[in-house]
Order: sequence, then structure tokens, then C-alpha cells
Amino acid sequence: MEQKEIRALLTAVREGSLSVEDAVVQLKLEPFRELGFAKPDLNRGLRQGAAEVIYGAGKTPEQIRDIARALLSGGQERVLITRMSPEAAAVVSAALPLDYRELGKIGILGGIPEPDGDGTVVVATGGTNDLPVAEEAALAAEMMGSRVDRLYDVGVSGLHRLLAHAEELMRARAIVAIAGMEGALASVIGGLADCPVVAVPTSVGYGASFGGLAALLSMLNSCASGVSVVNIDNGFGAGYLAAMIDHMGRRRE
Amino acid sequence: MEQKEIRALLTAVREGSLSVEDAVVQLKLEPFRELGFAKPDLNRGLRQGAAEVIYGAGKTPEQIRDIARALLSGGQERVLITRMSPEAAAVVSAALPLDYRELGKIGILGGIPEPDGDGTVVVATGGTNDLPVAEEAALAAEMMGSRVDRLYDVGVSGLHRLLAHAEELMRARAIVAIAGMEGALASVIGGLADCPVVAVPTSVGYGASFGGLAALLSMLNSCASGVSVVNIDNGFGAGYLAAMIDHMGRRRE
Amino acid sequence: MEQKEIRALLTAVREGSLSVEDAVVQLKLEPFRELGFAKPDLNRGLRQGAAEVIYGAGKTPEQIRDIARALLSGGQERVLITRMSPEAAAVVSAALPLDYRELGKIGILGGIPEPDGDGTVVVATGGTNDLPVAEEAALAAEMMGSRVDRLYDVGVSGLHRLLAHAEELMRARAIVAIAGMEGALASVIGGLADCPVVAVPTSVGYGASFGGLAALLSMLNSCASGVSVVNIDNGFGAGYLAAMIDHMGRRRE
Amino acid sequence: MEQKEIRALLTAVREGSLSVEDAVVQLKLEPFRELGFAKPDLNRGLRQGAAEVIYGAGKTPEQIRDIARALLSGGQERVLITRMSPEAAAVVSAALPLDYRELGKIGILGGIPEPDGDGTVVVATGGTNDLPVAEEAALAAEMMGSRVDRLYDVGVSGLHRLLAHAEELMRARAIVAIAGMEGALASVIGGLADCPVVAVPTSVGYGASFGGLAALLSMLNSCASGVSVVNIDNGFGAGYLAAMIDHMGRRRE
Amino acid sequence: MEQKEIRALLTAVREGSLSVEDAVVQLKLEPFRELGFAKPDLNRGLRQGAAEVIYGAGKTPEQIRDIARALLSGGQERVLITRMSPEAAAVVSAALPLDYRELGKIGILGGIPEPDGDGTVVVATGGTNDLPVAEEAALAAEMMGSRVDRLYDVGVSGLHRLLAHAEELMRARAIVAIAGMEGALASVIGGLADCPVVAVPTSVGYGASFGGLAALLSMLNSCASGVSVVNIDNGFGAGYLAAMIDHMGRRRE
Amino acid sequence: MEQKEIRALLTAVREGSLSVEDAVVQLKLEPFRELGFAKPDLNRGLRQGAAEVIYGAGKTPEQIRDIARALLSGGQERVLITRMSPEAAAVVSAALPLDYRELGKIGILGGIPEPDGDGTVVVATGGTNDLPVAEEAALAAEMMGSRVDRLYDVGVSGLHRLLAHAEELMRARAIVAIAGMEGALASVIGGLADCPVVAVPTSVGYGASFGGLAALLSMLNSCASGVSVVNIDNGFGAGYLAAMIDHMGRRRE
Amino acid sequence: MEQKEIRALLTAVREGSLSVEDAVVQLKLEPFRELGFAKPDLNRGLRQGAAEVIYGAGKTPEQIRDIARALLSGGQERVLITRMSPEAAAVVSAALPLDYRELGKIGILGGIPEPDGDGTVVVATGGTNDLPVAEEAALAAEMMGSRVDRLYDVGVSGLHRLLAHAEELMRARAIVAIAGMEGALASVIGGLADCPVVAVPTSVGYGASFGGLAALLSMLNSCASGVSVVNIDNGFGAGYLAAMIDHMGRRRE
Amino acid sequence: MEQKEIRALLTAVREGSLSVEDAVVQLKLEPFRELGFAKPDLNRGLRQGAAEVIYGAGKTPEQIRDIARALLSGGQERVLITRMSPEAAAVVSAALPLDYRELGKIGILGGIPEPDGDGTVVVATGGTNDLPVAEEAALAAEMMGSRVDRLYDVGVSGLHRLLAHAEELMRARAIVAIAGMEGALASVIGGLADCPVVAVPTSVGYGASFGGLAALLSMLNSCASGVSVVNIDNGFGAGYLAAMIDHMGRRRE
Repeated sequence: MEQKEIRALLTAVREGSLSVEDAVVQLKLEPFRELGFAKPDLNRGLRQGAAEVIYGAGKTPEQIRDIARALLSGGQERVLITRMSPEAAAVVSAALPLDYRELGKIGILGGIPEPDGDGTVVVATGGTNDLPVAEEAALAAEMMGSRVDRLYDVGVSGLHRLLAHAEELMRARAIVAIAGMEGALASVIGGLADCPVVAVPTSVGYGASFGGLAALLSMLNSCASGVSVVNIDNGFGAGYLAAMIDHMGRRRE
Repeated sequence: MEQKEIRALLTAVREGSLSVEDAVVQLKLEPFRELGFAKPDLNRGLRQGAAEVIYGAGKTPEQIRDIARALLSGGQERVLITRMSPEAAAVVSAALPLDYRELGKIGILGGIPEPDGDGTVVVATGGTNDLPVAEEAALAAEMMGSRVDRLYDVGVSGLHRLLAHAEELMRARAIVAIAGMEGALASVIGGLADCPVVAVPTSVGYGASFGGLAALLSMLNSCASGVSVVNIDNGFGAGYLAAMIDHMGRRRE
Repeated sequence: MEQKEIRALLTAVREGSLSVEDAVVQLKLEPFRELGFAKPDLNRGLRQGAAEVIYGAGKTPEQIRDIARALLSGGQERVLITRMSPEAAAVVSAALPLDYRELGKIGILGGIPEPDGDGTVVVATGGTNDLPVAEEAALAAEMMGSRVDRLYDVGVSGLHRLLAHAEELMRARAIVAIAGMEGALASVIGGLADCPVVAVPTSVGYGASFGGLAALLSMLNSCASGVSVVNIDNGFGAGYLAAMIDHMGRRRE
Repeated sequence: MEQKEIRALLTAVREGSLSVEDAVVQLKLEPFRELGFAKPDLNRGLRQGAAEVIYGAGKTPEQIRDIARALLSGGQERVLITRMSPEAAAVVSAALPLDYRELGKIGILGGIPEPDGDGTVVVATGGTNDLPVAEEAALAAEMMGSRVDRLYDVGVSGLHRLLAHAEELMRARAIVAIAGMEGALASVIGGLADCPVVAVPTSVGYGASFGGLAALLSMLNSCASGVSVVNIDNGFGAGYLAAMIDHMGRRRE
Repeated sequence: MEQKEIRALLTAVREGSLSVEDAVVQLKLEPFRELGFAKPDLNRGLRQGAAEVIYGAGKTPEQIRDIARALLSGGQERVLITRMSPEAAAVVSAALPLDYRELGKIGILGGIPEPDGDGTVVVATGGTNDLPVAEEAALAAEMMGSRVDRLYDVGVSGLHRLLAHAEELMRARAIVAIAGMEGALASVIGGLADCPVVAVPTSVGYGASFGGLAALLSMLNSCASGVSVVNIDNGFGAGYLAAMIDHMGRRRE
Repeated sequence: MEQKEIRALLTAVREGSLSVEDAVVQLKLEPFRELGFAKPDLNRGLRQGAAEVIYGAGKTPEQIRDIARALLSGGQERVLITRMSPEAAAVVSAALPLDYRELGKIGILGGIPEPDGDGTVVVATGGTNDLPVAEEAALAAEMMGSRVDRLYDVGVSGLHRLLAHAEELMRARAIVAIAGMEGALASVIGGLADCPVVAVPTSVGYGASFGGLAALLSMLNSCASGVSVVNIDNGFGAGYLAAMIDHMGRRRE
Repeated sequence: MEQKEIRALLTAVREGSLSVEDAVVQLKLEPFRELGFAKPDLNRGLRQGAAEVIYGAGKTPEQIRDIARALLSGGQERVLITRMSPEAAAVVSAALPLDYRELGKIGILGGIPEPDGDGTVVVATGGTNDLPVAEEAALAAEMMGSRVDRLYDVGVSGLHRLLAHAEELMRARAIVAIAGMEGALASVIGGLADCPVVAVPTSVGYGASFGGLAALLSMLNSCASGVSVVNIDNGFGAGYLAAMIDHMGRRRE
Repeated sequence: MEQKEIRALLTAVREGSLSVEDAVVQLKLEPFRELGFAKPDLNRGLRQGAAEVIYGAGKTPEQIRDIARALLSGGQERVLITRMSPEAAAVVSAALPLDYRELGKIGILGGIPEPDGDGTVVVATGGTNDLPVAEEAALAAEMMGSRVDRLYDVGVSGLHRLLAHAEELMRARAIVAIAGMEGALASVIGGLADCPVVAVPTSVGYGASFGGLAALLSMLNSCASGVSVVNIDNGFGAGYLAAMIDHMGRRRE
């Protein structure tokens, strides 16, 4: 498509309908504009039903509402708003049909799409206090078109709870392993599963958890293969990446 | 298959050819043995030509040689040895047909298999000092059956070198982004590509790089979606994960 | 016991009263269920009068109340609630006969049991600001069935206060040494006593105490034998461990 | 000029109009007073229209108002107030014609001077959350007499936005590169531009950004030449330094 | 006994065979000498067959030899030397019948005593690289009179290896859990066992293990009850503490 | 004196007026009681007019009032209360003639004594934001009987302000150097003065000051001789130590 | 020039001598190639006599020699080699007329150019141990065409040594302030001078200098305006930046 | 004296024997030269028998020898060389009558002076591994004219060893408390003594001692009054400061 534009421009030059000078100007601007199309596959994927994302933290409720409205009126079918405060949800709800999930501080416009991934994304947490991050991850993956299996509160100090779900873990296309405190969940899951595991350290804990640092270091040092790590509390990033992996097969076609 | 074993055991009990007591013993051991098959898909994948891995650090040359010999005589077609010193290579070479790649401290037995992944894994580095980690990643991915495209020395302080390879980046199934110092490469690549990016901070640098901490924190904070991080200098882990993602499509079948 | 179940199952298979297929399913689930009984001794101990524990932080007052009610109606004689806010105490008190100790933020249902340990657990603190953590430790140990001797405000900068209690220290079965700031108490007590010393760094302090890090590192570096450390401010963990040690003799019988 | 004073004093001594004793006293005080003129060039610069600065943090609104009033009545044409709270702005506005820019928490008295630098100072930010620091930098540079070009939200994960402004970057006399999270902006800009780049890490971010530490380390490790770093969130310091560089040419004359 | 001495002194004063002045001097020295008997129980235990300990690091081979010789000739039956270099072992062996275990850098004089503890101490490690620390712990516990069960290389990324030993874990009187890298072993074992677990982080690892810091923080944050932590690589301290707990029952008598 | 008591006791034993048994008991308690007199000189010093100290942080206003009242009624002439909130001051003022200095959060009962030290203690600060810590130091030193010279806002970025007071610095018996941010003041003063310099890092600053860590490390690394450091914001500790040094000469007599 | 190329291409299309398809291909490659000229001014500057730089660390002596030879034969007049070991110097000297300065580990080919900057760059150090970093900075600036004034060993603990050079500091166009330990030099110089000060923390020191961290944090917190910081021990970066600033005036023309 | 010089200069101006211009030049240079006398008292003290100091680390043996020779030939009676390697000692010994103390890496020229302080400086260490730092401190204090009492290996885990020396501690004019590992010695001594305590953390230890950081933080957090801290392993600084305090009384006269 973009090649078509260049071709059209060149043809216009050849045909004399565009001066060399004007073509020079357009081409000088082109390289950077071209890069605006840097993610064609993803864009395509998104246009096929997945969501555009607004990072809500540090934005006023009104800013969020206006961006969301602009996206929808611009043709975007679905919008995902992360780190959305209840106050922002109230403001957006007054203007748009918002589906607000307070636990994960997630706002949804346009509904969750039908899953169209290759399999299932598992979102597992060590404890109940990790649920907000887990919901952010799970809803992000769902908005990107993945089927999500939630395995909450399966921390390693009660191993039987985790092992009772060994089959879900082994069947998954990608797993998001979320844990605070000592973060051992990622290693144990990484040893059980044979798909990519995206580990999310959380800031849950106290004392020597140092705001998630203990879990972060623990996860980075995981001896299990196939484990990688995102930022502390970055549920969205993990859910997005897991959904991306869950769509690798389809993309191949 | 494993169900078949249980079924056979139960049938033997029913038929009286196995005593209840003996069956009890076998079943008590079973659950844990069963977990030994925890990664059937991967095992399958490995049996189809990919390599078994020996982590060479902290092992004597003789230990490495003996483990390698045992694996090969046990039917393993290929063996990958990481963090292998030249001394260990000399010892193993005396006994086995070793292909030793000194730059990445990688030893290969049985040769690199034909690629059978979904596409290409790109391994990109910020500077020439990151090459050892990069070769560890690239050879790991190749031994796991991926085609690897090496983009070395494309650091962000000379952006044109990286942009000159934008097409390879956009075509990749998975990218390993390796950088020391400030680690910005992962973010820039994450912004250009639309496949999973596995970031590897390296200990290359001095002063406030603090042995790779600066690059690690930088990569964890990447604003780009689809980026996750492994341990400092963990080229193998990144190459393995990238190859795993590169085989997601085939697995789907 | 669990062997009996397997034997019964196998006998049923042999006798034809259970199909091989159904037995397969039950056995596949078994290993994980089996692990549910992983702590029989402790469970037994707890059933003999000690408390079930609810970690109150991050739970709403209503959640705490409902869990507590469920435990009690499920036959649990006593319930210990840690990190319980006064607000939660008010809500629980309205429904259940709660004994709330505000200093340690501990709630008790069912009363403190008669001590049935081997001897005495000493809970010692460096300063008066460490009392909340100390009370959490002391009440945890008491709820687990230990007799507790409280030695508060015996910090090492006034050594005579500590030495005046040398006899209690030497007579103890386990000692919980709690200190913020420089955390020297654990080393000094470790040098005086000859029983296990569980050190608890506290976040009491300012400046270079860095939220308890100084005390934590100090305690980890203790030159005295028999000293081990739990997380900053983890009074419950220390009290629980001390009570466990205080019951080692009984368990032996 | 200051030599003139000494000369006058010496002449007074020679002429007998000043006693040796009194001269001794004046000269004993002189060295330190003399150092009060330690920045003659800058003072000159400032007298030619630039601003005196009040650091507003930790001062009461009344203190700020009184200092500002004293400066203006002392002949200072312009005053720049940084880290100024809206409360302080309200108090000062009641007494003086304040131009308050809430985004950057900057108060201006006497207006922004006509630019008299050598060229343009570019202030670039990675994200919209960095705007407060950016405005502090931009207004500081403007009050010091520089023309400022604002390039906001040109973070490296969307490289085309930055490249679209490559020309501004290449034309600048000095660039202030402001970014939180991974701080890669400084390296990328440092690689594109050939003027001094003053990098400002910001505390924007969460988790492993550790209050700006990740961006700080990243920027210190920049591989690009010509990049130096100021304290986290120190927009003023960066803007001031950039303006100083932007006046180097004029000073040469 | 010590009371007997005081009584004898007082009787001597009463009987006039000791002057008041001389008694003053002796009593002034007494309190501190008295504290020399601060650990009577332990001393008793040690006299009943357990070992005196020499910390070998930072001592010359000759110093170690001389201290060992002095201890033996002073009546000590057994001597345990930790952190002993092969060089020191050579020097000591030339003079004394040393049993040197190079893996754990442990020297033994007088042989390992018959176990006289309450049960078994389990020493478990995550990987083979942790063996030196593990042997230091195991031999320390054995020299203190405990029976030791070694479970090596049972890291959490291959959970079945650990679970295959669940029974040993559940039967133990105390467990030393040793792991580098992510240190998850302590949490998983803490969840399986119901005896005190002494966790030892090791400096095994690279990159973000930061010399054992990752494992240390992970273990301190363990969610499992009954887990406490000693210094990085402190195998001796953990083995000593585990043996102390393993003798709690006997002491009770 | 204490020898006299022992002598009296022994004489009583010799004379038969005290039984051997009773003497044993008294002597067993003695060592620890004796240590209660561990600081006789200081106590004497304090009784000669200096103040008893109450650390106000973490105490309720009522606790502070009651302790103060007890001290005064127990014969203490003066009481110094540090880290005292305005709320606590209000409560204490209602009951006692409190002299409250809000800037340093210091409460004084009994007035400041006449200076009786050897010379002058200088309290110097880098900036105006360090004043609360400085006042804590200055008033502590004054309450301990020292004459205090306050040199505020003499930071090293405006060296002439500091040098203008070179004579006070050179004449001092002890100097308290207080600075946040980069903490360079201690080194510069240490180079100018030839008396002990007690450096106090403050938590004043932002960004990479990390709550005073930057100033703390800077001061610990001071190249100047005679400089030592106390905890961040520990004005009291520095003032107390400086006053102690300022009384060394008198003590010698 | 580059516009000329585009114009030529477009003209060729218009004239039919280049097919539209071929032009598309060339233009698609263009943007990135174009960026290869991203630093035209600097390149120009360098061609006018300044040096090309080889970072010697991590390169073999032979690699350095070959790169240097290639640069010289490619027309480069001068080459600067940093972090060059004596071994590398020996190898290069055998082939090329190398001027090796061992103190700064700097190799020079083609000689130092005549200074053509606007004024003088001052390189100041706190102690003699900082000299290697200082020489790296000074020679880098000289090779970039600046006149350098070396003020070595003027640390702040002996202020008079620094003040004796106040005039040089005030006359400088840019100052490189190099210090380890407490790093106070940057602040003091920043307060005296009115030109940009580039601060270089060094790893000189011990204990709490933590490899330069103390000096780094100190310099980042400098209260003086006009101070910015580069990486620990990065003498080259500072010298390069100072020389860049020293040429700002010339560039303006 | 210096006033005399100014007066002479002014008189010369008045009398016409010095031109105004020449006086201007001399006066412009004066202030800085004047500061060269900044430490008259100390210098005087040193001239009265104490030592000049050479910091040996980072200097070649020849440099040390030459500086020492220059000092002696310049009239210095005694020279103290710290951090002196055996190699340097050999070189210096060949030329000068060196008294080398290898344990503390201290070289002495001119002998140790007769003590002329007010009392005794106690140097106490926690363990035998701290001896090198302790000897550096003790010899530094002795070279500065203090009588030193060495209390080595009195760590807090064996409290009786320390308490046996309580009298020495209470009689001291200043105490240097040296300890690695947990650094509790400073707090305990600070609680026993009533003179200034200079705490020296040492890098002795392993694991979580982090090169002395644990001891450093512990000492900074000491609850005992009168304790201040110097850099890790800075025996010289502590000994120098203690000797300075030990001479406060004499100076008063």
C-alpha cells in the first residue's frame, strides 16, 4: 500500500503532473511518516476486533473520556483503559457505555471480543493480594482476543493447590505467573509448563520485599527455561505479551 | 500414553497378574515419576532433532565430557554445551567430535539441525562487546531448530544502523535484543517490531552500569509493548525462549 | 491411611466393582489431593487446641469476619487474626466475641489456650517502639500453645537492663529477639543464650535504617551461633517458629 | 571594576584619606566579599534581562512573596520561582503581577525576556507524564534568554515521532532530553544530534523505575557522546545549563 | 557449681583464711568470668561427644594447626574446622590425623560422633553448585551429633525430584534448605514440611543474583511458616542451628 | 564506693552478721546492678545542670508529659524533649512551663543552662532547609552546657558565605556540619577547621539524594581528617557528641 | 547535496531513464542511508583536524592496530585510542608512529592538533589518584581541538589549593571536575565558575565509596547551577563534551 | 602576623615605595595564599612532635620513599605512612630507617613519640580479622601523641570478654570501636562508656555483609549517645580523630 503511494508519486512525476521540487519535499517528509506504519501486522490484528489501549495513570478523568470518545468516533471498535480510578470511571460512564472492572482498575468500551487465539492463556497468582495485577493481565489478554484461564491463589507454600491445576498449565499456550513476596511461583510454573511463561513480580508484601524487588530478582534468577519477566505490577504488559504469543500460530497462516 | 501405563497396571491387577500390594507401591511412586513427563511437548520437539543442554559453568572438563558422552550414547542426537571454557573444549574434543564456538563459549555435538520453526529469530546487539552473549543466544536458538538472523552492533546511539534493518525486525517471529550500558535497544526495537521481544541486559559497561543493573532496569521499564526481560548475560535463556515462540505455530497443528 | 484408600481402590478394581477407566481418573487426581494432607502433624497439633490464622492485611473487615465465622462454624476452636485494623476489629466484634489487642493489631477468637510446650519462649525487644511487633510475636506463640516471657526495652545501649534478665534468657527454649535501628540485640542475646534465637528486624528507626534494612543486615551477619532471621516486622512468623521449636520435645514422644 | 575599588582604596591610603588600619579591616573582609562577584559574566548576562531565581520548595508562600518583592524592589527586572505550589502562587498573586504556569509549577515576575542566545534550545520529553519537568526546564531556559523549541511525547517506543523532528534536533544549540521509565531518549537523541545534550531522568514510572533510578542509570550509561546528566526531576538545572551553553557564542565576543 | 565457688570464697573469708581485700579483688573479676559459663547446656552437650569449631577463613595454616593441637591436648575429643583451604589441610595433616572433606572445605579431627539427636536433619539443595555450602551444613550438623539426610539437586524447576522425597521432608526434625539463584526451594519445602526450615541463600548464580542477594530476599519473603534465614553461604550456621533444634527433645529430659 | 559496698558485705560475712547464703544471692545480683552505674561521669555531668532527654517520636503527648513530670519531680533540673510535635507541645504546655521551639521540634523544661564548656560549638548548615536538624543539634548542645555559634546557610556552592566565617570555624572546640543534597559542607569545613567535625547528613533534597543517602555517603568519604558521621537527620546525636567533646577539657581537671 | 541526489533520481524518472519500480526500491532504502549523515556538523568539524576515536577496552591489540591503520589509510589525519593497555600500545607502536600516554591509557596517532576552540578547557581533579581519568579527559579535549589547563590535586579538603586557581576557573569556557571519594569538588567549582561544569565521579576510594557511587550521587545532587554529570571514570566523555562546548562560539559563525 | 604583612604593604603604598598597581596584584593573590595557613593550631601541634602522614595506597614505592625523604629533610621529625605494601616497605627501608608494622600496613619514620595526650585512647575490635584496621588506628593515634590501650577480639557474641575490660572503657578519653559483620560492638561500647566513641565498620565478613555495608548501617543506627562513624576500614581516620579528642584538654590551656 505504502509502496503504491510512492509509485503514484513517481508516476505523477513521470507524467509531469507533479514537479520534481514538490516531490522532493514530499519524499523528504516521507521516511518518518512511513515509520508511522511500523506495526502493520499488529494494526491489522487490532482492526480485526482487538482493543486500542489508554494508560489511565496520570491522566485526568476528562482527558481519558475525550481520548476514548475520539478513538471510538475514529472507528475503533473497542477501547481498553488501564489503571483507571473509580473517579475516572464515573466521568467516562456518564458519557460512554463503560464496563468498569474495579478490581483490576480496567475500563472496557465496546465489550470483550470473541477469543480468536490459538489456545488458552493461563493467568496464575501466588496470593489473593495479587488479584488486581492479575485482573489487569487477564482483561488485557481477553481484550487482545485470547481465552483466559484464571488460576488464582496457587502460591508455592501450598503446592497441592498449584499441582491440582497441572493440566491447565500444561495445556496453555502462554502463562502469566504473578506473585509478590518471594516470587517463587514463576520458577515452579516454569518447571511444570512447556510454553512461554511471562512472570510479573508484584509490589505485594512488606519489609524485605522492598516494593517488589525481592520478587523481581527471584523471577529474573529463575532456573526454569522459557521464563521472562516484565516490570513490577505490569499486568497489562504481561497480558498483552501472552496474547501476542497466543496469536503466533494464526499469524503464521 | 502415560494413561495407557496406568490402564495396563489396573488391568494387570484386575487380571490378577499383579498383586494389590505391588500395585500400591508402584502407584505411590507414580505421581512423582509422572511429573517427570511434565514437558511432553517439548520432549517431543527435542526428540525431533533439537538439542539437549549442558550448563558448563561450575563443571569440570571431565564432568562435561562424561555427561555429553552419556547423552549421546543414550540416543540423544545433539548436545549443546553453554558457558564452556576453552579448557573444557580441549578435553571434550579429545573424546568427541566437538564443534566449539569460542566467542559464545558454546560447544555443539551432533551439528546444528535444519531449521523447522515458523519463521526467523532475530538476535540484535547494541555493541560489539555484547557478541559473546549474542552468540550464546543465537546458537541456542539454532540448536532448538530456529533460523537465526544476526544483527550485531546496531546500538541506538547510531540509529541509522538499526533502521537499515527495519525490515528484518518487522519480519521476525521473535527478537532477542541484547545490550549493556543503557539498554535502550530493547525499547527501540520493541517500538519497531510487532513480535515478542526478549531483552537481555549484559554486564558490558563500567562505572554506573553496575554489572548490568542499569541495562536491566532500563529494559524492565521499557514503554514498548511485547518486551520481556531475562537475567543479565542470559543469552541461552533468551535464545531458548525465542525459539520456543518461533515454534508456537507448528505446535498448534 | 492413604495407602488404605489406594488398596481399597485397587481391590475394587480387582473385584470388578470399579471400572479401569474410573480408576484411571481417580488416580490421576490423587497425587495432588494426597499432597493436601502434607502437614498432618501440624494439623494434628492445631486441632489439639492451637489456633488457625487469618492474615488481616489487605482484607476488608467483612472478609475477615466471614472467614473467621466460617472457621469457627467449621469446628475450629480458636482463630488468630494478625495485622488487624481497629476498623476490622469493630466489624468482627459486632458479630463474634473478639478479644482485640490493639498494640499488636491481633484479634483472638476462642481465647488463648493453656500452654502445652516444652518450656518458655522469650520475646525480647530493643526499644519500646518495637512493641507492636513484639506483641504480634508473643500472642502468636501463645496461640500456638507456648508460655511466653516478655522482656521489653532491653536494648544493647543499656546492657545492664538485658543482663539483669540473663537467667530468663538462659532458661528459654526459644527466643524471639526483636530490634530496629542497629539490630545488635540478636547478636548479644545469641551470645548469652544456648537455644535457637529467631531474630526479627523492625522498621523502627529513621534515616540510614532504611525501613529496617540496617537491622536486617546486622542480624544476618550475627557472629553468634543459633541465630536465624525472618522478614522485617514479621512478628507472627517468629512467634510461630519459636512455638514450633518449643513443641519439638513433645512431638518426639 | 572590582580592581577599580581596590585601586581607589589604595589611592585613598596613599593620599592619606584612609588610615592604614581601616584599610586593613576592609581588605581582610575583601577576599570573601570579592568572591561574591565570582560569576561576573553570568551576572552581566542576568543584568541584561534574565531572571533571578527563587527555589520555592520548602518555603512558605509568605517567604516567597517577600523574597520576590525584595528582589524586584532591589532592581531585579525579572524573577523566576520554581517548585511553586498553587497556594504560594495565590499568595504572591495577591501582592505582585505573577504569571503562574501550573504545569511546571513555575512563577514568573517581570515577564519572559526576548531571546538573546545563539540559537535554539530544544526541550524533548519521552512521554506526556514528563511535562511538568519539561516545562520547568523550558521556562527556566526562556527566562535565561533562550529561544525554546518544545518536542513533547517523542519517546523511543514510537521512533517515528522523534525522527519526524530530526531537523529541529540537528539544528539545536543545546538539547534537554527528559524521560522517565527507561530513559532511552537521551541516548537516541545523543546519537542524532551534535550539540550538548543535557539528560534529565524523571521520577515518572512505577515498579522497577525506583523513583527515577532506572532512567538515571540508563542516561549515565549512554553510549552517545555529548550527553551529560542532572539530578532526577531537575528540570531547572537542565534548562539553566542549556541556556548557558546557548549563550557561549555571544560570550565569546 | 559456680555458686559453690562463691560459697567457698565466702566461707574462706568467714574462716579468716582469705582476707577481705583479696576477696574484693576476686569478686570484682568474678561477674565477667561468671559469664564465661554462659552456655552451660551447650557446653555439656559438646562435652558429650560433639565438636569444638575453628573458623578457618583468615587464619594461616599454622595458626589452624596450633589451635587444633591446643584444643585436642586440652581434652577436646573432636574438632571441626570450617572454610579450610587445601593448603591448610596439608599443613594440619602433617601434624594431626585430619579427615579433610574438600567439597565442603571442612576438616575433622576425632571423627564424626554417633548421632544422638531426636531424629533426622535434612539438608536439601537446589542445584549441584550449592554442594559446597550443603556439605558445610551437613558435616556441621553431623559433628554436633545429628543424623543427616542429604537431598541434593532437588530444585523447584524440576518439582518431581523434590516431591519424590516428600516423605523424608515430612519426617525430618529440622531441614536446611540451600539454594542460590531464585531461592524458591525454601518456600516450597516450607510448604511441604512441618518442622523448622533453616534457609541458606548461596552466592551461586550470575547477573541479577547479585552475589546471593536475590536468593536472600526471596527466602526472607517466604510465605511459608516455620522458615527462617541465615547469612549467604553460611552452611555452618544453618547446620549448627538445625542440630540444635534436633536436640531440643533430649534437652527437655 | 562500690568497692566499699563489697567490702562491707564481706566484713558482714566475716563478722557473722550476714549468712553465706544471703551473701551468695546478693553477689549473684551484683554484677548487673553494678553496671547500672555504668556512666558515672556523665551522670555527674548531667546532675551539674545539663538536661535529661526524652525522645518524643513514637510517644503520645500524654506519655511525654507524664515522663517529663516524673523526671522533674524526681529532682531533674532540666528536661530536653526531641522530635516533639506541636500537638505534644500543646499537651505538655498545659501541665508544665514548656519552652517549645517549633523549628527544631524541641521542648525545653527548666531552661537552657549557663554554658560551662571549654569553648564554642559551631553548628553550620548548607541550606535553609536544613534548619530543623540544625536547631535540634544546637539546642541539644546548649542543653548539655555548651555555647553554640550558629552558621546557617553557608553551603559550598556559595563558598564566600562559608569563608566569611572562617574565623569562627577555626576557633571552635567542635563543629556540627549539617547538609543535605551533596553533603560537601563536611569536607570543606573539615579542611578549614582543626577540631573534631561531626557531620550530619539530612534528608533534604529530591531525586538522587535518596532520602539523605547521597549526603551520607559523601560525608563518610570525606578526605578531610577529623570528620565523623552520625545518622541522617540525627541533629540530637551530633549536638550531644559535640557538647561532650566541648567538655573534654573540664573533665580532665 | 542529499536533495540533489533525490532530485537527480526524480529527474531520471521523469526522463524515463529510471523505471518507477527501481526508483521505489532506491527510495525505500533511502531514509536510513540518509540518516547516516546524521551528524554533518560534527563530521565537518572532525575533518577539520580533530580525531577519530577508538574505544580500546575489550578489543585485542591486533584489532586496535588494524582499525587504526584502516582509519589512517582512509584519510583520517588523527586517531585517538582510549583505554589502551600497554600491551596494545606495544603492538600498535610496532606498526604505526604511536604517541602513547600511559597515565591516561591514551594512544595518539597523527599528533595533537593546534587548539582552535573559543577559549580554555580546565580539567581539575580532587586528588592525585584521579590523574588517569583526568589525563583521559584532557587528551580527549586536546585531540578535539581545545586548549587544556590542568589543575590537579585541588581537592576541597585543602581549599586554598583550589582557590589559588580561582582565576583559571573563572576564565574557562568549560570545566571538567574530576573527583572520587566524596566528589565535593564539582559543587565547589560549580559555585566559583560561571561556565558549564562537567563532573566526572571516579572509582577512586574504598569502603563506602562503593566504586564511585558516593561521588556520583554527590555530584548529581550538586546545588551549584551549571553542573552536569557523566558516568563514573568517563574521562573521555567529559573531555569530549567540554571540547564541544568550547567550540560553540566558532560553530555559531 | 598576616595583618602585619597587609599593614606593611599598605604602609609601602602610603610611603610610595610600592605602586598602586603592584599592590593590586599582590592583594588579588593574597586571599588564597592566606588560606594556606588555615590550620595553624594543627600545624603547631604537629610540629611539637606528632607525625606528618603519607597515604601509601596508589603511590609507587619510589614515590613514597621520595616524599618521605623530602619531609624528613624538610625538618619533619616523624613520618607516618599508611596503607604501605611490603614492597614499598622494602624500597623505603633501603633508603631510610623505617619501622614497618606489616599487620597494620603502617610505616614509621622517626619513631613513635612520647604520649602527651590527656589520657588513654582505647582501640577495641570485634574479632581477630579486624586487627589490620585496628593497628592502623592504634599506630595513627600513637603517632599523634596518644597513649593507646588495645582491646582486641572483644566481640559482642562473647560479652564477658568485653565486660572484663569495662574499666578500661570507662576510663578512656576516646574509644575507637572496630567491627565487621554486624557491627554491634559500637552500640554496646557506646552504652558502657561516657567518652566519644569513633566507630569503624570493617569489610571483614561475607555474604550479606556486602563489603562492610551491614556494619556501617548498624553503626550509623546506634542507639547509644556519643557514637559517630567513619568510612569502612578507615582505621587511620578514627585513630587520628580519637587522638585529636584526647588532646582537647591540653589545647584548652
